[in-house]
Amino acid sequence: MTGFPQRVKIVEVGPREGFQFEGSGDPLRIKLDRKIELIERLSHCGFQQLQIVSFVNPRAVPQMADAEEICHSIRPAAGVMLTGIYLNDTGLRRALAAPGLTLIPELVLSASESFALRNQKRSFAQDEAMQRQMAALYQSLGMKIDTGNIMAAFGCNYEGEIPLTRVIEKVELMAEIAASAGGKLRHVLLADTMGWANPEQIKNTVAVFNERFPEIELGLHLHDTRGLGIANVYAALSSGVARFDAAVGGLGGCPFAGITGAAGNVATEEVVFLCHQLGIETGIDLAALIECAKLAEDIVGHSLPGKIRT
Amino acid sequence: MTGFPQRVKIVEVGPREGFQFEGSGDPLRIKLDRKIELIERLSHCGFQQLQIVSFVNPRAVPQMADAEEICHSIRPAAGVMLTGIYLNDTGLRRALAAPGLTLIPELVLSASESFALRNQKRSFAQDEAMQRQMAALYQSLGMKIDTGNIMAAFGCNYEGEIPLTRVIEKVELMAEIAASAGGKLRHVLLADTMGWANPEQIKNTVAVFNERFPEIELGLHLHDTRGLGIANVYAALSSGVARFDAAVGGLGGCPFAGITGAAGNVATEEVVFLCHQLGIETGIDLAALIECAKLAEDIVGHSLPGKIRT
Repeated sequence: MTGFPQRVKIVEVGPREGFQFEGSGDPLRIKLDRKIELIERLSHCGFQQLQIVSFVNPRAVPQMADAEEICHSIRPAAGVMLTGIYLNDTGLRRALAAPGLTLIPELVLSASESFALRNQKRSFAQDEAMQRQMAALYQSLGMKIDTGNIMAAFGCNYEGEIPLTRVIEKVELMAEIAASAGGKLRHVLLADTMGWANPEQIKNTVAVFNERFPEIELGLHLHDTRGLGIANVYAALSSGVARFDAAVGGLGGCPFAGITGAAGNVATEEVVFLCHQLGIETGIDLAALIECAKLAEDIVGHSLPGKIRT
Repeated sequence: MTGFPQRVKIVEVGPREGFQFEGSGDPLRIKLDRKIELIERLSHCGFQQLQIVSFVNPRAVPQMADAEEICHSIRPAAGVMLTGIYLNDTGLRRALAAPGLTLIPELVLSASESFALRNQKRSFAQDEAMQRQMAALYQSLGMKIDTGNIMAAFGCNYEGEIPLTRVIEKVELMAEIAASAGGKLRHVLLADTMGWANPEQIKNTVAVFNERFPEIELGLHLHDTRGLGIANVYAALSSGVARFDAAVGGLGGCPFAGITGAAGNVATEEVVFLCHQLGIETGIDLAALIECAKLAEDIVGHSLPGKIRT
């Protein structure tokens, strides 16, 4: 007997992660029509949700300056939820104004202050203050926060190991902020932003999290920086985790993570293949997804880390 | 509590796997001195054993025609066991004549007849007959067979799934052949030659194998064709497996496996990193090994699948 879930939800984040990363240094390298082509093709693979853009400062991340244009132009398959990310109230306002997007009322905190200072230019105190500001904005819009994200939850290139107690404290803080704005934390995504996790750490984190927050569904956003990504997914699945982010082809990376070389998300096709091999339903058409991985390689102009191509 | 071993033995097979695969189509592409450079550097990483060449038909695999020359020329670190592979009596006689090599008295059978027909040009009956011929040769040399290898033990691109009962039967056959030649099977390596294994299959195979052959040490030779390689290593480690083959950088693949695209072995640096993260000793200097992975990329002239580069 194992603790595998019967079915998992995989959110495809490749367009957001990938085009943000691939365009760094040359924001015009990946053309708008090709971004749209990939998103539309992905929308036919069976995903419930695609994360397609980020609303971040176009001066800091010029390759995502076309976020609104993407939202305006795409014609996705019916019934697919399109989402974006944002790290402050300005981004949230832009996301609200973008057509076709579903806004998930969510909070984001970093578990590493050094990473927060580099990625969001914020101390822990400023990070918390921004989430309170966003919570007030959600509340003023009549939206109840139900989701939280913790970045750098498993380790940090600037700080090294991140204690699990700090991650738990950040979840508690998000739960308090959500409640203070009339919401209730129901979903938490722990992100291994810089690819530090190992499978036993995943198992331990899941066990401690589920013990402390039995009413919150845990999801994972895992990077494959050091090659342990799919082993980490397997460890999480065997602990019953049923919600993952992944990026087609293994697209992506974080331009602020201080890593050279491969640093992308776990490749969606590998996560889907693993699930199917384990008898876990995903609702995703693997053959169609592999074609999207090949398309992504054609668009970025180089091979991607994902290994399944037939 | 887990079933992790305290220490694992990792055999580096990159030079054999990699130069066999990389040179296909252009046997002179990888120069002899560069092969030697990589092997010598690898010999300083802490491996007990390096598998450096294969003694196969130079007409079928011209890129390995320099096997004897490699053995003549290398100056490895002291105390490192150098080995090669061979699939018939002719290869075994060449290996016996090569200087500096340690010969492991071993047998090799394929669990897939279709693969055996393509890779060794042999039916199951011919495969068995060849092993009996080699057993007689070992015996005439006073060498007692103690090791067996099963190729395509987890699945086959030509046959699909390989029943575990067949793998067990092949091990029984090898044990009988070994005994008939005065030997005793003490080590068996199951090879996922075409990258079909998944982590639960690994766990089940290990459990059934250990139940049936409690006196034989099981090792694994895993390919990462579909991205599950390191998850499979993790599953094996958690089942107590303490002996793995791996290839620096993820070099390699099998020219007869009918696969395009990435098909190499699990990357040694990822296996070592995983072990160290889990508190398992390997005796290997990870930093030195990562430098070898970079050297291997320089030698083959393209990036390799292994992800750890810092």
